[in-house]
Amino acid sequence: MSLDLASQKPHDRLAAALADDLSAVNTLIRARMASEHAPRIPEVTAHLVEAGGKRLRPMLTLASANMCGYDGPYHVHLAATVEFIHTATLLHDDVVDESEQRRGRPTANLLWDNQSSVLVGDYLFARAFQLMVETGSLRVLDILSNAAATIAEGEVLQLSAARDLATDEGIYLKIVRGKTAALFSAAMEVGGVIAGQPDDLVQALYDYGDALGIAFQIMDDLLDYGGTDATGKNIGDDFRERKLTLPVIKAIAAASDEERAFWVRTIEKGDQRDGDLDEALALLARHGAMEAARADALGWIGKAKTALQQLPESPLRGMLADLADYVVARIN
Amino acid sequence: MSLDLASQKPHDRLAAALADDLSAVNTLIRARMASEHAPRIPEVTAHLVEAGGKRLRPMLTLASANMCGYDGPYHVHLAATVEFIHTATLLHDDVVDESEQRRGRPTANLLWDNQSSVLVGDYLFARAFQLMVETGSLRVLDILSNAAATIAEGEVLQLSAARDLATDEGIYLKIVRGKTAALFSAAMEVGGVIAGQPDDLVQALYDYGDALGIAFQIMDDLLDYGGTDATGKNIGDDFRERKLTLPVIKAIAAASDEERAFWVRTIEKGDQRDGDLDEALALLARHGAMEAARADALGWIGKAKTALQQLPESPLRGMLADLADYVVARIN
Repeated sequence: MSLDLASQKPHDRLAAALADDLSAVNTLIRARMASEHAPRIPEVTAHLVEAGGKRLRPMLTLASANMCGYDGPYHVHLAATVEFIHTATLLHDDVVDESEQRRGRPTANLLWDNQSSVLVGDYLFARAFQLMVETGSLRVLDILSNAAATIAEGEVLQLSAARDLATDEGIYLKIVRGKTAALFSAAMEVGGVIAGQPDDLVQALYDYGDALGIAFQIMDDLLDYGGTDATGKNIGDDFRERKLTLPVIKAIAAASDEERAFWVRTIEKGDQRDGDLDEALALLARHGAMEAARADALGWIGKAKTALQQLPESPLRGMLADLADYVVARIN
Repeated sequence: MSLDLASQKPHDRLAAALADDLSAVNTLIRARMASEHAPRIPEVTAHLVEAGGKRLRPMLTLASANMCGYDGPYHVHLAATVEFIHTATLLHDDVVDESEQRRGRPTANLLWDNQSSVLVGDYLFARAFQLMVETGSLRVLDILSNAAATIAEGEVLQLSAARDLATDEGIYLKIVRGKTAALFSAAMEVGGVIAGQPDDLVQALYDYGDALGIAFQIMDDLLDYGGTDATGKNIGDDFRERKLTLPVIKAIAAASDEERAFWVRTIEKGDQRDGDLDEALALLARHGAMEAARADALGWIGKAKTALQQLPESPLRGMLADLADYVVARIN
């Protein structure tokens, strides 16, 4: 690999290596998000699908199928399926969170209305199922319908766990598996399944996606207390929305009575005042909660890379390993 | 048939004839709406699934499979699938319509929140897909994923057609097929498909469901201007929500300039005053719009019963024919 290539970010290198497939995925996505009868659908979808998402999940499917030597046409369908499911959950999340920005742009629910976000999300879910039915693989259908159920279950769990200081690391892990890791792992798994790989290899693909997704979400939650990036998130959004993410869960577990009273007031009761975010950051620092959460993420990255070792060596495998490292390198 | 049975409503007779299957469907529904991790899910779902719905759609699937001589276990899965899809769309509809009542009871979005309605709806969609995957029939999966896409497309179309006086009977039909008939026709069709029936018979099952669903929705829209019933709807809800349903579309098509100005003000601009609903009812009466819409519904019922003629004679076939008659007999 040239120095120039090595200096690129891992997902850019993946995108370059998978360029032809990715172009076919984009063509398929555009064709399937059309609606003869309801022009509102492609309007809303285009806003989101073409808003500069990194196509991370479809690239996982394409990379997985390619590494497994698949030479049929259906990895493109599955990659588009995964992106449609992801886009549908984003549309619904923005309604649920009453978000006004995503990736630095106004959300669909703000530009159109909640109604359009709910219904266009439903349309994309249905389109995703149509695409996966076309592959003719019942095992793929089983994996992706299970993933869809896990995603929704995780989102509901997050809703009922919000503002509840009893949320522990076990519950957090279930939420994270649902909201992020389930689609990462399914995206990897189906690539191996359509390539007809044996169970242990499919399990390794699943494990990589699962661990990568968990680490990705832990880092995302850390970023919310430690920096701004291109996601358009501002420091403290989760605090203001009273979400119990890993660093806060760790700080609460180690809290003195006085500190606990602070978390009860700000997170459980929602009585937040000027200076509270600074106080929260100070408490996270006092208990080393950020470092501990980052160490957990690093542990998951280790698992992800171990799982990759079961696959034959290849340039794509190297890029997936680099992608795992990059996920935790996003902040220090 | 005894006089006692003949005096029952057709869906009660269907429920009696299908009692064992229906009981298996209810057991499966309760098992699959459970969630180990998120107790909010069965709470919300039970509120709706057990709120005295008539199980009309699952009965169509059970009746269809039984009429076709099916003797496997999967008609129960498919009936539960159809009810889950229906329940999921109700949950999302209530968010979209900002409804506060359904079947005379407060809606889930009022009892819990919009977030729960959106996410539990997503969970039920995913559960529906899991159930249909278990049947192992790709043709069933194709039919039901297409139906799900048609439903969502119809709902979005309804959203963009709302308040738009250019909505004509062709657009209305597309909306009605999406919001109601698509699931009726798919419910019938999959019963024939799992029973391995030939294409012309499956087409007849589809045609019955399609025509029944269209008539059902036309009558529902008529009821909104002509009576109260157990659905908890009040006269004029659609008028206040500025929905363009068949009677209004017919009255607008026949409107004088002055009448048109009334519809522009009340429906398009939403400037509604005391007495406007009475004026709307008077305009519907002046142009015979209610009778004309009811005649359309009767025409669809005729098509539904013609389609049934292609099936072998049986008690269930008789009940489905009676059901069709009953749909248009709900009001005069």
